[in-house]
Amino acid sequence: MGGVQSFREMCDRTKNTNIRLSLPAVCVVWEIAMIILFGVFIRYNWESDAHWAESKHNLSDIENDFYYRYPSFQDVHVMIFVGFGFLMTFLKRYSFGGVGFNFLIAAFGIQWALLMQGWFGSLDYSDGKIKVGVENFINADFCVAGCLIAYGALLGKVSPVQLLVLTLFGVTLYAVEEHIIIKIIHARDAGGSMVIHTFGGYYGLAISWMLYRPNLDQSSRLQGSKYHSDVFAMIGTLFLWMFWPSFNSAIAGHGDGQHRAFINTYLSLAATVLTTFALSSLFQKHGKLDMVHIQNSTLAGGVAVGTAAEFMLTPYGSLIVGFCCGVLSTLGYVFITPFLEKHMKIQDTCGIHNLHAMPGFLGGVVGAITAAAASDTVYSHEGLVNTFDFKDEFKDMVPTVQGGHQAGALCVALIFGIGGGILVGAVLRLPIWGDPADDNCFDDEAYWEVRVGVLQLLFNLSVILYSSSYLGPNGNDVFRKYSLDLYQNLINFWSQSS
Amino acid sequence: MGGVQSFREMCDRTKNTNIRLSLPAVCVVWEIAMIILFGVFIRYNWESDAHWAESKHNLSDIENDFYYRYPSFQDVHVMIFVGFGFLMTFLKRYSFGGVGFNFLIAAFGIQWALLMQGWFGSLDYSDGKIKVGVENFINADFCVAGCLIAYGALLGKVSPVQLLVLTLFGVTLYAVEEHIIIKIIHARDAGGSMVIHTFGGYYGLAISWMLYRPNLDQSSRLQGSKYHSDVFAMIGTLFLWMFWPSFNSAIAGHGDGQHRAFINTYLSLAATVLTTFALSSLFQKHGKLDMVHIQNSTLAGGVAVGTAAEFMLTPYGSLIVGFCCGVLSTLGYVFITPFLEKHMKIQDTCGIHNLHAMPGFLGGVVGAITAAAASDTVYSHEGLVNTFDFKDEFKDMVPTVQGGHQAGALCVALIFGIGGGILVGAVLRLPIWGDPADDNCFDDEAYWEVRVGVLQLLFNLSVILYSSSYLGPNGNDVFRKYSLDLYQNLINFWSQSS
Amino acid sequence: MGGVQSFREMCDRTKNTNIRLSLPAVCVVWEIAMIILFGVFIRYNWESDAHWAESKHNLSDIENDFYYRYPSFQDVHVMIFVGFGFLMTFLKRYSFGGVGFNFLIAAFGIQWALLMQGWFGSLDYSDGKIKVGVENFINADFCVAGCLIAYGALLGKVSPVQLLVLTLFGVTLYAVEEHIIIKIIHARDAGGSMVIHTFGGYYGLAISWMLYRPNLDQSSRLQGSKYHSDVFAMIGTLFLWMFWPSFNSAIAGHGDGQHRAFINTYLSLAATVLTTFALSSLFQKHGKLDMVHIQNSTLAGGVAVGTAAEFMLTPYGSLIVGFCCGVLSTLGYVFITPFLEKHMKIQDTCGIHNLHAMPGFLGGVVGAITAAAASDTVYSHEGLVNTFDFKDEFKDMVPTVQGGHQAGALCVALIFGIGGGILVGAVLRLPIWGDPADDNCFDDEAYWEVRVGVLQLLFNLSVILYSSSYLGPNGNDVFRKYSLDLYQNLINFWSQSS
Repeated sequence: MGGVQSFREMCDRTKNTNIRLSLPAVCVVWEIAMIILFGVFIRYNWESDAHWAESKHNLSDIENDFYYRYPSFQDVHVMIFVGFGFLMTFLKRYSFGGVGFNFLIAAFGIQWALLMQGWFGSLDYSDGKIKVGVENFINADFCVAGCLIAYGALLGKVSPVQLLVLTLFGVTLYAVEEHIIIKIIHARDAGGSMVIHTFGGYYGLAISWMLYRPNLDQSSRLQGSKYHSDVFAMIGTLFLWMFWPSFNSAIAGHGDGQHRAFINTYLSLAATVLTTFALSSLFQKHGKLDMVHIQNSTLAGGVAVGTAAEFMLTPYGSLIVGFCCGVLSTLGYVFITPFLEKHMKIQDTCGIHNLHAMPGFLGGVVGAITAAAASDTVYSHEGLVNTFDFKDEFKDMVPTVQGGHQAGALCVALIFGIGGGILVGAVLRLPIWGDPADDNCFDDEAYWEVRVGVLQLLFNLSVILYSSSYLGPNGNDVFRKYSLDLYQNLINFWSQSS
Repeated sequence: MGGVQSFREMCDRTKNTNIRLSLPAVCVVWEIAMIILFGVFIRYNWESDAHWAESKHNLSDIENDFYYRYPSFQDVHVMIFVGFGFLMTFLKRYSFGGVGFNFLIAAFGIQWALLMQGWFGSLDYSDGKIKVGVENFINADFCVAGCLIAYGALLGKVSPVQLLVLTLFGVTLYAVEEHIIIKIIHARDAGGSMVIHTFGGYYGLAISWMLYRPNLDQSSRLQGSKYHSDVFAMIGTLFLWMFWPSFNSAIAGHGDGQHRAFINTYLSLAATVLTTFALSSLFQKHGKLDMVHIQNSTLAGGVAVGTAAEFMLTPYGSLIVGFCCGVLSTLGYVFITPFLEKHMKIQDTCGIHNLHAMPGFLGGVVGAITAAAASDTVYSHEGLVNTFDFKDEFKDMVPTVQGGHQAGALCVALIFGIGGGILVGAVLRLPIWGDPADDNCFDDEAYWEVRVGVLQLLFNLSVILYSSSYLGPNGNDVFRKYSLDLYQNLINFWSQSS
Repeated sequence: MGGVQSFREMCDRTKNTNIRLSLPAVCVVWEIAMIILFGVFIRYNWESDAHWAESKHNLSDIENDFYYRYPSFQDVHVMIFVGFGFLMTFLKRYSFGGVGFNFLIAAFGIQWALLMQGWFGSLDYSDGKIKVGVENFINADFCVAGCLIAYGALLGKVSPVQLLVLTLFGVTLYAVEEHIIIKIIHARDAGGSMVIHTFGGYYGLAISWMLYRPNLDQSSRLQGSKYHSDVFAMIGTLFLWMFWPSFNSAIAGHGDGQHRAFINTYLSLAATVLTTFALSSLFQKHGKLDMVHIQNSTLAGGVAVGTAAEFMLTPYGSLIVGFCCGVLSTLGYVFITPFLEKHMKIQDTCGIHNLHAMPGFLGGVVGAITAAAASDTVYSHEGLVNTFDFKDEFKDMVPTVQGGHQAGALCVALIFGIGGGILVGAVLRLPIWGDPADDNCFDDEAYWEVRVGVLQLLFNLSVILYSSSYLGPNGNDVFRKYSLDLYQNLINFWSQSS
């Protein structure tokens, strides 16, 4: 810990948020790298290539149907860009950063994910090319989701350059972890409770721990929502909530598996909403509901049912998972997040521990238990083989052993998340990334041109003039302090714009 | 009326909006009830069960296609949660309640609807289980829509506990009414003009009549929109408008029926937009457009074409229906809503009478006429049998008789709506549900933690201090009254937060 | 130019934005015209008609599948109404006009487009009827997109009546231009780089040139965004960005063409995001990002890949197109838009020159080059025939000649855009359309009932009273000027509402 501490001190120099050189440089260099790598490696797959007209043999056009999987892709795509993006607009002065940087890193991440996942999964050894089609793009969105979850813990405290670095390493780690879990361990994880949420959650928390800011309370006036930013965040919440059944069923096995993944996720989410409202009201003064819980905890049911989504979880089993998750996640916001911040030095802006890390872990456990309990009676023999893919080298696998593999996969996700997060966090502490100072967090001014309205200026002016004239030397100190802050901002604005 | 009046007085006690016990209790108890009932009754259907791999016989995977109906389901789902939810954010200080309580009751309602509709429609008598699949979930969304419509009339005036009660009874009534209309009377109602909109509209209006608040003008300062809340509401409007063709075609007969339902709805909605803009401009001073009309009346065309959507209404017929509906609905906002409030004691916050009740009734009439006028020439014999389902016990039905059945179904919807609304309204008058006092309506403060910004506080403070110092004893009375209100709020806030 | 100048002066009379007669008259008359024309011409197509049950012969229901093309239709529909609509809400006081008038003209335009495109493309010569189905509705949305692009240049400066006229002529021009390009010249343009974007872009710019307002700086205080209006605009940006792959693939050839259109568009858009962020940061003071660029330039990649979307552009080729487009479009906002306004008298509110006109032109060029370079090796012979539709009368066509045709088609789009825009612009200069005066642009007050909150009023009042009392005769002049403006607004408001 001493080493970490001194490393921390070494990195804590004066902050400069001017990214005029670093951001363009990173974006352009990486995009050029993408072009070169895509040129060397990525090709259309069999279905997308114009040769299909000749190579299709006896297949009809309906066998190459664009609308098989594509509607799922679009729903997942909406979750990534609108869902995650708008969920992160809840801060009063960081809505641009929430939705804007989400856009940037997702757009970069999907390109890098196509390559990384392609090298591991879709490489055609006959010509050394990665052949891409709709499923690759769904998987790329999944991969990016892990990094966006990690962003949630760091929202408002990092620079876009740091986020791009986080995404580069995050996608790389994800692709390796996914390969180990799905291909080597042969665990099933249709909705990614382990692969996406556990990994992404702990990855973000570990980075946040490495980037701990002891004086973050200097930005506390901006670390909260205001009325309309909360309504914007509800756009994100609802699109995530509605399309989560598509997320968990997007790459599930065609036929009954996909139907089941949809039904389980839908029911789990519905139950979560009720317990979230219940707990939110129960733990607030006067029984008032807290928007933070409604925006986040209502989604935990979708996370926790991810691994088991395509199993025979049964409808009431899904309701039970959702019920518990709503309780757990809301309690997390009330008790665990403050505890983590005070005693564990983990500052978690969006509460991803409650929305992704814990429910993801729970989902992995539920998946392991459900897999271990699977039987021919419940699934039918052929159903069991289909659902758990007991084929080829795994044709002698039995459910109880599969349960063990699921538990092993959960550990892999945890290790990659925490270990990867600590390493990447160390890199992100280097004082070259343009992150904001402690008193400048959660403020879009650092990285965005923010237009201040004339009305707002006039208001500020009037408050300042008035308070200074009226209150006199014996006036309220708090009031005067804010007046001076406002005045300073005003002066800065005038000097910039003139 | 005397009895109703004295019952009203009995119920009008001092209001207490603290729902810290009642809301959690209701949510948790009902969710546990759901889990038990789902455990006893709900199972995966044939397509979703893992046994499908063995029981499919000669069917290929394409016959169990997830993407048949699922895209419709997702569109309907978006309408329920984002469409209805954001349409109700238009009030200046009730956006949380609009989108949040919509979320809560929809999530509860779909679970209860799966059970209620299942008992009536999907019960497998061989094992006493309800087998659910995608179509059940579409129908559950439809069912919940009826209750969300009713919420529109009560927006801002009821507690979340009341809404849960409203939904419990509303879903129950809906399931019975739907069974009578569709199965017993054998009426056709693809888009639910009668089953959903007429029922839901009059259900909400009857409850609103029972819950009449004579002193609601005490909240009039909050009963309106502000600039950004109107833009939020447009999100709801547009998603409802765009996906309404999916709504009306979601459970229409596969093949030509579904195509026709889409085309008719699309055209009717397009025509409605033009007449809504025309009438809105015509009836406002200076010809200015009113956002209330644009947000709501533009949707009336989708409601009115619901029953006849799958019939051979013809494209120009759909335009005519939409044309009339835009006129009717906008006139409703200008003339009928104020009339209902003044003379009928019906306070209709969102104007559901103009958007759902009237257009739904009109849709039922259009459906009856179109059905009665159907002929072999227009439909072809086989087309007629398919469209109106003249099979089995109804194989001797003729279009004119079908028209009569449609009219009968409309009456059933009306009776269930008004009768059910009066009964449920009586229950909701009991002084135990935590509804707000008359001067506290349309205010999120009652049920939500609302964060007031420092800037806002400073502004309030400056106004109060200034006005009190400047205006002196002879100042403007209105101004002083508001200053004192603001001051009071400020004091409350400080005392709560310190 | 002299003639144009004097014509301009003739038209510059005192402006009156009261559209209480003209807007309702135009809407109602045109909708009645639509009903009559639909009655005479439009019928359900083979798939949608109830006769399908008899006429289907050996086809199964799966051959008449609603979900073939319909998911694409819905994605495109969302782009038209939510995408374009919310993208235009970015102005601080013109959000109602942005999303509302977009709604109006799109709803009118799709009806007129069904007729115009039907006469050219879907007319059944056996009975003189236009038979419509899902593809016609996708094409109608495409057609309307051209007019909505043109609206972008004029946002805030025209009346809704002018917009309806713009749409009437725009749809007409589009239908003719599309027929020439697709049917006569036999150019391919799946995503409409030429047909939609080049045409729409230059159509709007030419109209804007004709409607040049030399004193528009009188409205400059409103010609900008504010914090929340920028977040609203991001809703539009993201839905356009996410669904652009559906747009470009919506009417591409079933099978491999549709897959390819999706992949190319997706990759081009992803690359554009990175270069847009890079350039935006590079050209702003302090390296801060500009929301205008993020909202618009990130979409240019989808425009530029439109024509070549279904060709074998290769994945890295798509990235290169996207890369260049992000650079070009952002530079356009930084350098070209101010140049156009200062030296070319073209005022382009949304910067459609950078988002649609230039990238569309570039897309046409990319399409021509890619088509000319096509070969049997890359496409396979059958693939080449399928992709470029070298059949029937064009069965002897070769790729190089096709490239020439593509270039010719681009010229046609340019000529129709610029020529049509000048003619329609001349019509729109007539002083009968109710457009706002130069000091009244970008203000929703002109056409919408805007509710000013009590808080806002109190604030205004306090500022005015305070400033007038405090500053005295020697106070700050700028401050006093705004105070008087605010005072005037206040007086107007009170006089209207009392």
